[in-house]
Amino acid sequence: MTQSIEQLSATRSHGGWVKRFSHRSQVLDCDMTFGIFLPPQAEAGPVPVLWWLSGLTCTDENFMQKAGAQKMAAKLGLAIVCPDTSPRGTDLPGEHESYDFGSGAGFYLNAKRSPWSQHYHMYDYVTSELPALVREHFPISEKEAISGHSMGGHGALICALKQPGRYASVSAFSPIVNPMDCPWGEKAFSRYLGDERGEWSDWDACELILAKASKQPMLVDQGEDDQFLEEQLKPDHLEKACHIQGVSLKLRRHAGYDHSYFFVASFIDDHLEYHARHLFADQA
Amino acid sequence: MTQSIEQLSATRSHGGWVKRFSHRSQVLDCDMTFGIFLPPQAEAGPVPVLWWLSGLTCTDENFMQKAGAQKMAAKLGLAIVCPDTSPRGTDLPGEHESYDFGSGAGFYLNAKRSPWSQHYHMYDYVTSELPALVREHFPISEKEAISGHSMGGHGALICALKQPGRYASVSAFSPIVNPMDCPWGEKAFSRYLGDERGEWSDWDACELILAKASKQPMLVDQGEDDQFLEEQLKPDHLEKACHIQGVSLKLRRHAGYDHSYFFVASFIDDHLEYHARHLFADQA
Repeated sequence: MTQSIEQLSATRSHGGWVKRFSHRSQVLDCDMTFGIFLPPQAEAGPVPVLWWLSGLTCTDENFMQKAGAQKMAAKLGLAIVCPDTSPRGTDLPGEHESYDFGSGAGFYLNAKRSPWSQHYHMYDYVTSELPALVREHFPISEKEAISGHSMGGHGALICALKQPGRYASVSAFSPIVNPMDCPWGEKAFSRYLGDERGEWSDWDACELILAKASKQPMLVDQGEDDQFLEEQLKPDHLEKACHIQGVSLKLRRHAGYDHSYFFVASFIDDHLEYHARHLFADQA
Repeated sequence: MTQSIEQLSATRSHGGWVKRFSHRSQVLDCDMTFGIFLPPQAEAGPVPVLWWLSGLTCTDENFMQKAGAQKMAAKLGLAIVCPDTSPRGTDLPGEHESYDFGSGAGFYLNAKRSPWSQHYHMYDYVTSELPALVREHFPISEKEAISGHSMGGHGALICALKQPGRYASVSAFSPIVNPMDCPWGEKAFSRYLGDERGEWSDWDACELILAKASKQPMLVDQGEDDQFLEEQLKPDHLEKACHIQGVSLKLRRHAGYDHSYFFVASFIDDHLEYHARHLFADQA
C-alpha cells in the first residue's frame, strides 16, 4: 500500500534536489516532516542512501542548511535523508518544557512509559517506517549507511549496533555514547523507559558493544573544545568498550572544535567519503 | 585611534575560525555585529578579503551558516567578512514594518531623507568604516574583492562601480541590478533618497554602467526558477547596459535554481576561485 506524502518544497542544489515532505506517521501517530537530498545520479536510477539523525533541538532542516554536505554527496552519488528529531504536534504534558526532553529530543528509542509510549517510537520510525516510505517514493537502493550528530550520533550508533549487517557503515559527530551515564541520557531514559535501568542498556551504544551486539567498525569525530565533552559525551567510554570487545573504532579528536554545525561542516566530507567506500564497495 | 570591538563567539571551522563581533558604528550611530572567516593562512600573515553583502531579511550570520564557503576559502587562503544588512536597534517610525524596507533592508546606500539619514549610511559603513575597523583588528591585506546576494548583489555591484580600481574583482548572485526599475528598489529609494529620481542613479548598477562609472568585469549567477527574476531582478537590464558600454559580463543562467542559499551554496566555490584568481594575480 502506498503511503501518501505531501511535498513542502523542492530546491535545486548542486545539480540535485533538496526536497521537504510531510506525511502521516503510523508508528508515531502524528504528522511528520523529513528532508531528502537527491544527487544528480538519482535521475538515472537508484542510489545508496545515508540516514542523518540530528541532535537536540534540531529539525529535519538543520543538516540540509548548515552541514554543506550536498557538494560531496552530489559528487559521490549519495542520497541523504534527514528525519525530524521527535514526534510533533502531540502536546503531551511537559513535552515542550525543556530542550533535552520531549519535542526535539526523541532520543531515537521506543518509549515504554506513558504518556510517551503513545507517540515516541523514533527507533521504529527511523529504522522501519521512514525507510519504507522513502523507498516507495524515491529512487533509493537497498544500500544504506547511517550517521548523526550528538543525540543523533547516539541514534546512529544504536541503530547500527541493534541491526548488525544492515548498514554498510556507521559514523557519528560528537555522539552521546553512553546515555545511561550522563545527565541528558538519564533524564530522557528514566522518563521514556522508566526507572528500571536494566531496560536502558538496549538503547546505549557502550552497553550494546559490551553485550557483543555487533562488531561493525565506527568512525567518530569529536571536538576537544566541545562544551558537552566531559559531562555528556564521554568518548573515552566508547573507546574503552570497543577496546574490550575488539571493535574497530576510528575516533578522531579535533583540537579547538566545538559542538556546532561548523564542526560538522568541517569534517562531513570525510564521513561521506567513508560511507561511499562502504556503500560502493562491491562495485569497486 | 583603535576602535574597540567585542567578540561574541569564536568557532573553529575548516582549520580556520568563524568569529562574530559587535562594535559601535560611528557612521550608522548604532551598535552593529559582523562575522568574519579567517582561513588557516591568516595565522602566518595578512590574507586577502572577500566582502560578502547579504540580502533582504538577512543578518551577518546567514552566509556563514548556509553558504558552505569555508572549505574553499580555507583552501584558497581568503578571509570573508559579512556585515549586517542595515542599522540595528534604532527603532525609527515604520522601520520594522516590512521585510523590504528599514531593518534588514539597508540597500547599501547613504540615505538622504529624514529620519533615515540619521542612521542609514550602509554604503559608507561597508566601504569605509568596517574595512578600517577590520584591518585594525585582523591580519587582512589591502587586497579585497566583493560579492553578495540579491540586495547584497546590488550592493556589491554598486560598491565596485562607484570605486573603480578598488576591488580586485566583483561578483553577485541573483542581484537587483536596476533598482530604479523594480518594486523593491523604487520603494526603498523613494524613502531613503526622496522623490527626485535623478538622485537614484548614483545607486543603480545599470545606471552607473551606462554613465561609464567603471569597466570592471563582473561575474553574475542567476537561477532561472528564481521567484523574483521577472519582477525584481531583471538580469537582462544588466546584460544590455554592459553590452552598450563594452563591459565584460559573465552572466550564468542556471535552469531550475531558485533564490535561496541552496543556490548560493551550489556555486559559491566558483565565485571564490574567480576572486582568488584576481586577488592573487600579481603573485602568480
